Amino acid sequence: MNRYPMKLVTIVCESLARTHVVRLLTEVGAHGYTLFPVEGEGAQGGRPGDIQEFGNIQVQIVAPPVVADEIMVRLQRDFFKRFAMIAYESNIQVMRPEKF
Amino acid sequence: MNRYPMKLVTIVCESLARTHVVRLLTEVGAHGYTLFPVEGEGAQGGRPGDIQEFGNIQVQIVAPPVVADEIMVRLQRDFFKRFAMIAYESNIQVMRPEKF
Amino acid sequence: MNRYPMKLVTIVCESLARTHVVRLLTEVGAHGYTLFPVEGEGAQGGRPGDIQEFGNIQVQIVAPPVVADEIMVRLQRDFFKRFAMIAYESNIQVMRPEKF
Repeated sequence: MNRYPMKLVTIVCESLARTHVVRLLTEVGAHGYTLFPVEGEGAQGGRPGDIQEFGNIQVQIVAPPVVADEIMVRLQRDFFKRFAMIAYESNIQVMRPEKF
Repeated sequence: MNRYPMKLVTIVCESLARTHVVRLLTEVGAHGYTLFPVEGEGAQGGRPGDIQEFGNIQVQIVAPPVVADEIMVRLQRDFFKRFAMIAYESNIQVMRPEKF
Repeated sequence: MNRYPMKLVTIVCESLARTHVVRLLTEVGAHGYTLFPVEGEGAQGGRPGDIQEFGNIQVQIVAPPVVADEIMVRLQRDFFKRFAMIAYESNIQVMRPEKF
């Protein structure tokens, strides 16, 4: 059985960023995403806009490396200053690369 | 402290696949799973059976590579045509390999 | 765009371990965490304290390798005997290492 390398991008952000994040995913050509509410606490030191205790979501996107890169670049450029948010990327394997 | 390599299998599927997925996990000898509801959107293009906006779950299984392989093979063989579903695999490390 | 290697520590445990886990994260200097309720089933064989079907949470921590190590060591030393719990570690990449 063949496996194909993909990237998993995980975004934890305040809920009010949701529509903006989903629009970004559409713009860069991501084929889908998973989203669920989470609690949490963000970076210590309490900068305004740091992640609050409630009202956060976690968004997960499986995408080819080039699309994942584009998501990360645009998060950095357009989102990190505006929204309480963290994002990270990891390596995964899938069986049907055409789905992503 | 020793670490042992395991696989994390993640399945995102429509809720109605739940009992079938759990039965598969039992059959292949997985020792546990984690499950939670998610929202999301699936592959663009709207094939019938693609992941809908509501009523999805995410299932996570930590398993030895051979068990993870078996899960992936059987998802491909028996589930992908029947259920709206994506699945992926990643490398993790654990401390108590006998638990999985 | 630079990426920096971090660790993602994932803990699945009974809810009653929550305050203890959060205190541990503070003590080792983790800068944040994400938490959400999950269902699931634990190791077969039914030892008392194994993960029950309801009332579990999943906690995720992004941290530098040395902090992740400390979390894993202390979970092993102080938590595994007291609480129904699994924990695992994986490699991720971030863009703003100073956040974690």
